[in-house]
Formats: sequence, structure tokens, C-alpha cells
Amino acid sequence: MEIKVVANIMDANDQIASQNRKRFQGLGLKVVNMLSSPGAGKTTLLEKTFQGIGNQIRFGVIEGDVQTSRDAERVQVYGVPVVQINTGGGCHLDANMVQSSFPELKLEGLEILFIENVGNLICPSAYDLGEDRTVVLLSVSEGDDKPLKYPAVFRKADLLIINKIDLVPYTDFNVRRAAEFARRINPALPVLEISCRTGEGLESWLSWLRALIGEQ
Amino acid sequence: MEIKVVANIMDANDQIASQNRKRFQGLGLKVVNMLSSPGAGKTTLLEKTFQGIGNQIRFGVIEGDVQTSRDAERVQVYGVPVVQINTGGGCHLDANMVQSSFPELKLEGLEILFIENVGNLICPSAYDLGEDRTVVLLSVSEGDDKPLKYPAVFRKADLLIINKIDLVPYTDFNVRRAAEFARRINPALPVLEISCRTGEGLESWLSWLRALIGEQ
Repeated sequence: MEIKVVANIMDANDQIASQNRKRFQGLGLKVVNMLSSPGAGKTTLLEKTFQGIGNQIRFGVIEGDVQTSRDAERVQVYGVPVVQINTGGGCHLDANMVQSSFPELKLEGLEILFIENVGNLICPSAYDLGEDRTVVLLSVSEGDDKPLKYPAVFRKADLLIINKIDLVPYTDFNVRRAAEFARRINPALPVLEISCRTGEGLESWLSWLRALIGEQ
Repeated sequence: MEIKVVANIMDANDQIASQNRKRFQGLGLKVVNMLSSPGAGKTTLLEKTFQGIGNQIRFGVIEGDVQTSRDAERVQVYGVPVVQINTGGGCHLDANMVQSSFPELKLEGLEILFIENVGNLICPSAYDLGEDRTVVLLSVSEGDDKPLKYPAVFRKADLLIINKIDLVPYTDFNVRRAAEFARRINPALPVLEISCRTGEGLESWLSWLRALIGEQ
């Protein structure tokens, strides 16, 4: 008897991701999967987004964390509907976890749903959640060689945000080199340079979100 | 018929880790498993270590990465014997990978073997490699709440190094709070504050290594 454990898991995930994607499309909802290392600034970017255009676009958030609801609490302050998924030690979100959260989050009427994945630059890259776009954040303090060392998430990315650009003067990070390394993996990858601390580059991110909604 | 897939994997890992540990002990070799997020500064800390006391202690290194041999190349400059393990997408080292690298690395005569794990604050915590000590690096730019959000690695740690302490003035990181959060998970955890950039705190790390060798 043949046993195909990994193949079955991934097939099952893709089937559920496909159901999620249909549901999102049916609602005219755009879904953005946010990936990064721990502490690269995903939640802070969401906070800045809601401060900036939270009254112009109807956002929702699914927060993924190993444990705690700290990120959900930070986001909820802005009046954005949010649900927290705790993986209980698990290193990534999968499509079933996302689907299981739907009863807790009214999707109808939302325009953009952010799924903030577990902080992990490796494992989440293998799991389709049904998203329209994958955004990868790379924080300046992580070093500009990360696209070479963790290629799978950069390959999956539709947008690379280089965050904490205000720290460049205090590190050896070379922005051009980071972008060049990322484009070796993913040649057409757009790159935005952002500082959530100073606000630099945030407008280009907000424009990216507005353009996403504009798409049919 | 009962199928216990995960249990078997972990049992097998523990058996091989136990073999590794016996081998290390038989050689009088101390082994340090280094864990952190991507880009927290593990390799740079090794470089500073070899610059500082590379002529006083006989070090060896096993480098674990998803791909590339960049870290091994950085370390080799200091004349330290090093072997690179590429996991090919895998998110952690396991005991068998470590054991498989032994033929490539002459363990006899070494005093401290560093195993630099894959940059990942979640998955490596579940895999015993046969190490004597686990050192966790947390970089200031990751934020001081990480021990609460990723408790398993902090629970496994024998030493917490808060690295990039020179970036504190440019971030919201609170060193006391980070240490307090880590000690909620692991009450007796020693904490060192270090900057590989300025050299601050490095002497206390080198003393920790000297003390490790002194142990019977």
C-alpha cells in the first residue's frame, strides 16, 4: 500500500485555498498575505495603513501567531474587524485555519482583507491561503543577503517592502543590493522602501493598496 | 493498524541526538546550538568570537542554511574548521543532518563546536541536536515582545543574547521588558546585552564560552 503523507497534506491545502479564493472573489474582496521574519514590522505597517486610509477603504484582518492576541489587540484599536488565529506552536497559517476563521469575521462588505502570517521566513511560503497577493517585508536590520538565503518567500512575493529604511545609516544594509538579490529570485518583483517610524515611502504603499482595489 | 508519524520522527531524532551527545562527550567537546530569527546576527557573533579568542580556543562550526554557503565562507576566513549543511528548503536542522556532517569535520581536538541553526524562531526549538547549550539571539530591531510571541525557543534557551544593542536609541525596544518577558517563560534565563558593531558586551560572551570549557 502506498502512503503519500506530504502530498496529501499539500493537495488538501490547495483544495481549501481554492475554496477560499472563490469565496473572496465572489465577495469582490482582495486578500493580501503578509509574510516576514519575526519583528520585521508587519503589524506596525497595518497600524500605519489604518491610520492613513482606514476611513477610505473597508479593511479586515486575520492575525496569525503562535500564541497571544497582542497583534489583534493592536489592530483592533483602529476599529478594523479582526480575528486572531493561534497556531499553538505551528509555524505557518494554512488554508484550513483561514477558512475556519470566517465565522468569526464578517467578510461581506470588506474591500481588503490582510492575512498577517506567523513570523517565519521559510514555512509559510509553501501554503496557499487563497490570497490575491503576497507581500514580503524585509527589515533593514536583517541584512541585505536574506533573499539569497531564504529564496522561497521571495519567489512567492508580488511585492517586496524593505522596511525600517530609517535604520540604513546604522547598519551595513545596501538597499540596491537587497533589491538585486531579490530580483535574481523573482525578476519582475516591485520593491518599495518604507519607514513606518518616519513615514517615508508609506504613500507608495497606500497607492499600491488603492490600485489593488481598482483591479477587476 | 495504528500510524504514529510525528511520534516516530521525534523519537528517531531524539535517538540520534543522544548518539551525537555521547560522541561529543567522549571527545570532551562542548556544543552550542545557536537559534534566532533570520538576520539577528548569529554569524556576525561567531566572526567576533573568532576575532576575539580564535587563537585561545579550538572552535569548529556547523552552519545550517536553507541554501547557499555564505555563512560558512564568512566563518572560514578565520581559519576555523566549518561544514555547511543545506536543508534544501527545510526550516530547521535535525540530529541526523548534524550526524551526517561529522565525516566532513574533524571533531577530535576541538573544544567548542557551534551549530548555527537555520534562521527561524519556531521550528528549530523542537529538535534536539545533541548540544550542551542552546543560545538564543534576539536582535533589538525585532521588538521586545518576541519572547511572549515565540515562547518555545526562549523556553529551550540556556542563554539569551540581546544583540544590536547599539540600535536601542533608534527603536522602541525596552531591554528590561524583553528580559522580563523572556523570564516569564524561562525564569532563570541569563541575559547578555551585546553589540557586535560597537563591541559592547562581547567580553561577557567570551567569558561565558571560557566558563563552558572549564566545566567538567
